Amino acid sequence: MSISLATSADPISAPKSHRDFLGAVAVLRALTESDFESVNREILTHMQSSVGLIPDLAGHLVNAGGKRIRPMLTLAAAHVFDYEGVDHVKLAAAVELIHGATLLHDDVVDESSLRRGAKTANVIWGNKESVLVGDYLFSRAFELMVAAGDLRVLQILSRASGIIAEGEVLQLATQKNIETTFEQYLDVVNAKTAALFASAAQSGALIGNCNEQQEDAMRCFARNFGIAYQLVDDALDYVGFEESLGKTVGDDFREGKMTLPIVYAVARSKPDEKAFWQRTISDGKQEPEDFETARAFMERDDAIVDTIACAKRHAEKSLNDISKVPANKYSSALAEMVETSVSRAS
Amino acid sequence: MSISLATSADPISAPKSHRDFLGAVAVLRALTESDFESVNREILTHMQSSVGLIPDLAGHLVNAGGKRIRPMLTLAAAHVFDYEGVDHVKLAAAVELIHGATLLHDDVVDESSLRRGAKTANVIWGNKESVLVGDYLFSRAFELMVAAGDLRVLQILSRASGIIAEGEVLQLATQKNIETTFEQYLDVVNAKTAALFASAAQSGALIGNCNEQQEDAMRCFARNFGIAYQLVDDALDYVGFEESLGKTVGDDFREGKMTLPIVYAVARSKPDEKAFWQRTISDGKQEPEDFETARAFMERDDAIVDTIACAKRHAEKSLNDISKVPANKYSSALAEMVETSVSRAS
Repeated sequence: MSISLATSADPISAPKSHRDFLGAVAVLRALTESDFESVNREILTHMQSSVGLIPDLAGHLVNAGGKRIRPMLTLAAAHVFDYEGVDHVKLAAAVELIHGATLLHDDVVDESSLRRGAKTANVIWGNKESVLVGDYLFSRAFELMVAAGDLRVLQILSRASGIIAEGEVLQLATQKNIETTFEQYLDVVNAKTAALFASAAQSGALIGNCNEQQEDAMRCFARNFGIAYQLVDDALDYVGFEESLGKTVGDDFREGKMTLPIVYAVARSKPDEKAFWQRTISDGKQEPEDFETARAFMERDDAIVDTIACAKRHAEKSLNDISKVPANKYSSALAEMVETSVSRAS
Repeated sequence: MSISLATSADPISAPKSHRDFLGAVAVLRALTESDFESVNREILTHMQSSVGLIPDLAGHLVNAGGKRIRPMLTLAAAHVFDYEGVDHVKLAAAVELIHGATLLHDDVVDESSLRRGAKTANVIWGNKESVLVGDYLFSRAFELMVAAGDLRVLQILSRASGIIAEGEVLQLATQKNIETTFEQYLDVVNAKTAALFASAAQSGALIGNCNEQQEDAMRCFARNFGIAYQLVDDALDYVGFEESLGKTVGDDFREGKMTLPIVYAVARSKPDEKAFWQRTISDGKQEPEDFETARAFMERDDAIVDTIACAKRHAEKSLNDISKVPANKYSSALAEMVETSVSRAS
């Protein structure tokens, strides 16, 4: 079984701003190309099992593509500090396996049926199977980390895994709850997305033998990038171009997910408009035209604009953080990825 | 929140043979009593979270009791080798948290509604919540292991976690499949139950600084004990005394679980009886009197007797294994637990 190296979107047909981001991702990918093949081999090796369902289901997930930003953070962070060993490959593969396990459980929890344009594993094989194969991948990720043999990294990545699970539980509690605040949503993003970004980069920097300030800078850089990245994704769920992006616009709205655009829109809605959010989000009773109405409210109240503005503030912090580590082609490529990630939605 | 130290069954009303086993467990518990309080504190600490649902759901599971055989294996194994540190407590708590995470996911996968006489977490809080809190406990278990700081132990326990997940997937594949063979079922038991028993004991022995032969002996002792223990449990699901045992007789039959009693019964059934197993297990169409019919077939064909005999063979191997480690009150208590565990069903 081979692992596709393609990104999930076609760079040619994507809008210019999104092409810039995919270009930056491609630059980073090219810089880490030989590592990346090793990462894919490690992932492939560690999703094998004599129990045939496991590689089938895991392979479906892994082959579905994705930009693999998390493992690239680990690889690039190690190279920022001129790391010359091989353990960054194991850690990058472990990070991607943790992410994969999370996606499998996520899709069960969200009852999702599509991911990156393909049927989800829970739809093809079933929820039980997705839960158990997720557990398997999670365990295999830990084995890989243990093989890398750095207790500080093990501590960081095991802590991140716990935080991700906490974030998922928190998100479950905010779902369909239109009282969700900005702070609560940021807590979810921090835990669900930014924690793994942060520890992926921090782990790479640590084995690259950085000093404490640099470790802190790499962690904060990736954490702020993770927040910015997630917020832009949330905005794109309302204003994206789905033909070129390979994602379905409106999923978050249909699932009643309280992302930042809705948090802002509800907070800014007029008293007589609350009933709309109550019906469509809290009660989950949606008519075909509701999504357009929601977008119109968001436009009027700057809900999308301000979501992007919030993403840009975190991107600026992220760029400031990365300016504190050695300037080289790896840190430049990381900075370029952050910069272009927030222009995706403009 | 306090953690109940009670075992799941009442020693007074249990039959004599089961009382002997509970007595052996109580002896082991008394020998490790002060450690045990520390283990409970570690478990309590590591199931905390600012996300309130997590300690609520985890507390429900943890307070439901159970004999806590797995963490006792770790504690006792360390003491067999005169270990005087504190890391065995962390490892024992990690082992119990892994077991707890597995139970949460197990109950979702099996769609169980009762465990140890109480409603399961998936029934009270929901499947999604059980999946995510299971993930949380699993991550916290790894953090505890990392805190213990022994890479060999980390390798053993992370490998065991992967094997457990593999075993669960394998069991899913055998469920309702009356073609399941003895070997396939033993594979399930080895992975689902015996792997964690084995690595729990091996981890304790390792930090106790045993030699390689002793490490091997402790691992094999606990693996064979785990198999014997599971097989007796499987038999008790057909012939147990539920008032005294605190477990519901007939659960495995109703769920179509291919445990050893059914594997033997199907293999030994007459050609015209296959339709009975096909209907009740494969098709899951059961009438109230079917359980008694199944038990009658099992009695006629020695399916229970031979399940117990198989358990006893593994118990003998287990006793032979433990005879290779230093003889002291800890190894004696472990041996006594193995011996009495297989007389539970006679």
